[in-house]
Amino acid sequence: MNEQSPRWETGRVEAFSDGVFAIAITLLVLDISIEPEQYDHLLKALLKEWPSYFAYVTSFFTVGSVWIAHHDLFTRLRYIDPMLLRLNLLLLLAAAFLPFPTAVLSQAFEASTKSERAAVAFYGLTALAIELILRAMIRYASTRPELVEGEIPPLPKSERGWRATIGSAGYGLAIAFGTLLLPHVAAAFYLLIALRGVLVSGHEGRLSIRLSR
Amino acid sequence: MNEQSPRWETGRVEAFSDGVFAIAITLLVLDISIEPEQYDHLLKALLKEWPSYFAYVTSFFTVGSVWIAHHDLFTRLRYIDPMLLRLNLLLLLAAAFLPFPTAVLSQAFEASTKSERAAVAFYGLTALAIELILRAMIRYASTRPELVEGEIPPLPKSERGWRATIGSAGYGLAIAFGTLLLPHVAAAFYLLIALRGVLVSGHEGRLSIRLSR
Amino acid sequence: MNEQSPRWETGRVEAFSDGVFAIAITLLVLDISIEPEQYDHLLKALLKEWPSYFAYVTSFFTVGSVWIAHHDLFTRLRYIDPMLLRLNLLLLLAAAFLPFPTAVLSQAFEASTKSERAAVAFYGLTALAIELILRAMIRYASTRPELVEGEIPPLPKSERGWRATIGSAGYGLAIAFGTLLLPHVAAAFYLLIALRGVLVSGHEGRLSIRLSR
Amino acid sequence: MNEQSPRWETGRVEAFSDGVFAIAITLLVLDISIEPEQYDHLLKALLKEWPSYFAYVTSFFTVGSVWIAHHDLFTRLRYIDPMLLRLNLLLLLAAAFLPFPTAVLSQAFEASTKSERAAVAFYGLTALAIELILRAMIRYASTRPELVEGEIPPLPKSERGWRATIGSAGYGLAIAFGTLLLPHVAAAFYLLIALRGVLVSGHEGRLSIRLSR
Repeated sequence: MNEQSPRWETGRVEAFSDGVFAIAITLLVLDISIEPEQYDHLLKALLKEWPSYFAYVTSFFTVGSVWIAHHDLFTRLRYIDPMLLRLNLLLLLAAAFLPFPTAVLSQAFEASTKSERAAVAFYGLTALAIELILRAMIRYASTRPELVEGEIPPLPKSERGWRATIGSAGYGLAIAFGTLLLPHVAAAFYLLIALRGVLVSGHEGRLSIRLSR
Repeated sequence: MNEQSPRWETGRVEAFSDGVFAIAITLLVLDISIEPEQYDHLLKALLKEWPSYFAYVTSFFTVGSVWIAHHDLFTRLRYIDPMLLRLNLLLLLAAAFLPFPTAVLSQAFEASTKSERAAVAFYGLTALAIELILRAMIRYASTRPELVEGEIPPLPKSERGWRATIGSAGYGLAIAFGTLLLPHVAAAFYLLIALRGVLVSGHEGRLSIRLSR
Repeated sequence: MNEQSPRWETGRVEAFSDGVFAIAITLLVLDISIEPEQYDHLLKALLKEWPSYFAYVTSFFTVGSVWIAHHDLFTRLRYIDPMLLRLNLLLLLAAAFLPFPTAVLSQAFEASTKSERAAVAFYGLTALAIELILRAMIRYASTRPELVEGEIPPLPKSERGWRATIGSAGYGLAIAFGTLLLPHVAAAFYLLIALRGVLVSGHEGRLSIRLSR
Repeated sequence: MNEQSPRWETGRVEAFSDGVFAIAITLLVLDISIEPEQYDHLLKALLKEWPSYFAYVTSFFTVGSVWIAHHDLFTRLRYIDPMLLRLNLLLLLAAAFLPFPTAVLSQAFEASTKSERAAVAFYGLTALAIELILRAMIRYASTRPELVEGEIPPLPKSERGWRATIGSAGYGLAIAFGTLLLPHVAAAFYLLIALRGVLVSGHEGRLSIRLSR
């Protein structure tokens, strides 16, 4: 360990990050609205809003799976150093930006215009950026034993293997497929990647922790 | 207990959930506004906004009673496992969605159109979904003694009895009644269910905790 | 102490309340905006927004002083019982509502219409409600020694004296004066009451705590 | 130490401040939006939004660097006294206001009108106010040894030297330069100052902490 290198306890970084994730996830609902003139046929209008619901659920689970991975990472960490603090700020920058591509995606799908391809690519690039920054954080932390809590086992080998690249590769493929061929299929893929992120947590996924009694 | 099953301490899950509940509850006020042209008769305009105030108070206590029940549940828990983490994420997804049906409900009542029935059903279904996910969480946690704090008594039997179904049944009845007969009565019922959720807390309600000295 | 009476540790109630206060205080800025056509004379437009700045600062310090008093109260408490939990929820309901009267107040002052009196009364009544609920919480807690931390001194006598009524009486007078005579003076009074709440904290104000080494 | 002077533990002040910073940073994204008629040429519209992205990133890192400095300061503090509490509230008032100048800046740049100079000055003055309040807090805390944690070293001398004035002087110069000459250059300077605030943290910057094992 570099004697000069400063480091902090992780508590307040977690609290601040939790705040940003919680707000980003909750602001998503502000994008969903019914125009006054649609209230004459409200049921129809509510059903027509399906792209908004789809985008809401997708982004909710995208941020949710990032929160779980963030939570898993910080459970292992005892200290945070300046580089990790900056990577964390970059992660929050990208995650807090997601409500904008989410609104663009749902509006493009509602308008059914040719804008769908650009919207899908824009959303995918934002999600890919989040995924890559998260990977960089996990990779960086796994090379800094001085940050890790003594009693907690080191980061699993699998994190540096092929499993870790599934998310990133998935976004890359979906962006290419959605921009060139079928935007709707790409959007469905974004939801699947987010759901996988939530479901694998604690098993063999992003970062698992095993605390046997 | 499954030796392989991972679990986490509950602290950060509570903090994240608190953030989402607090934001969902606070965003509700953004739905209330006065149009510029109404400022000539402001007092009248403020009074005409009663459906917004009603919807604000109803959703505030609905989220508030969910927060109390969530708080009661997590006071008993020492660890959270992946399944409970996912159920918790589902609960937050539904709770963070509530500001949208709240806005729809108040706007439908202000417009006094035939849209009231659809709005009441939409709101009720969202509240029912929240209630059912909360029930599923409590039921799941009560079957996992390895998650419970050692010194805290197990979940009370009553939670698996008829009392637990009052909330869900209440929403079901109100939805049916409001859609077929009187929407305003159903909306008043939503407020009553939420108030009951707040008032029974700590007595014989959703989840009570008894810490005698 | 009633043996049956349940109670909780205060930690999570504080975290949830902090979240609501922080969001209510931060949402206030969303009320301030410049119309696109005003960008030709931006400096003039920025200056013309003074009622928005005034309302922002007033409500910021109003919520800020409530947060300080809330903080002072909970520093003394070790447990919270169901009644205090419900009063706390009522306080949050009123505090989270404040952004709406704030927007009404600034818009009424910008329009310079006859709506100012109604706006001043509406704002004052909300602030008075917040003050009264806060008083009720402090009064209730001061009669429940079983909730208080053992090592912390009991609530000071002055809290039950004339000092405690300054805030409430101030709002009452300002509402009457502003509705009948000069709305602008009443609005300035709201700011003064809020500033007093911030400035007296820790001295002889709402709730002071003295921890000498 | 003044025996009469009250003081509190810092925990809840940090939590409340974290909440305000997190929300201010996350609300910034609400300023970015695409008009419905722009969806016919979405890619072009997304690119045309560059001033919004620029303003988003600048304000994100501005608040982020303030949060880091705030975090550094409070890591050293064990107690907070009434004066520091008030300065902290002033800091939050200014930080929570930043989304408004951010929106004005990006809209002025998108409109490419003569409003750019006023927008740049308005943004710079807000950022300067934040910086000066932060300086005042650090300076005040450094003269109150009774607030500092026993085991933590005192505030470094450099904080009272020329390094501490870089941020303030930078904003002053950028405001003057941007108002009189080139607004775009001044805006770029705001981003650089914010990035510096993030990058120097933990090294020789605002407030560094060295915890060697």
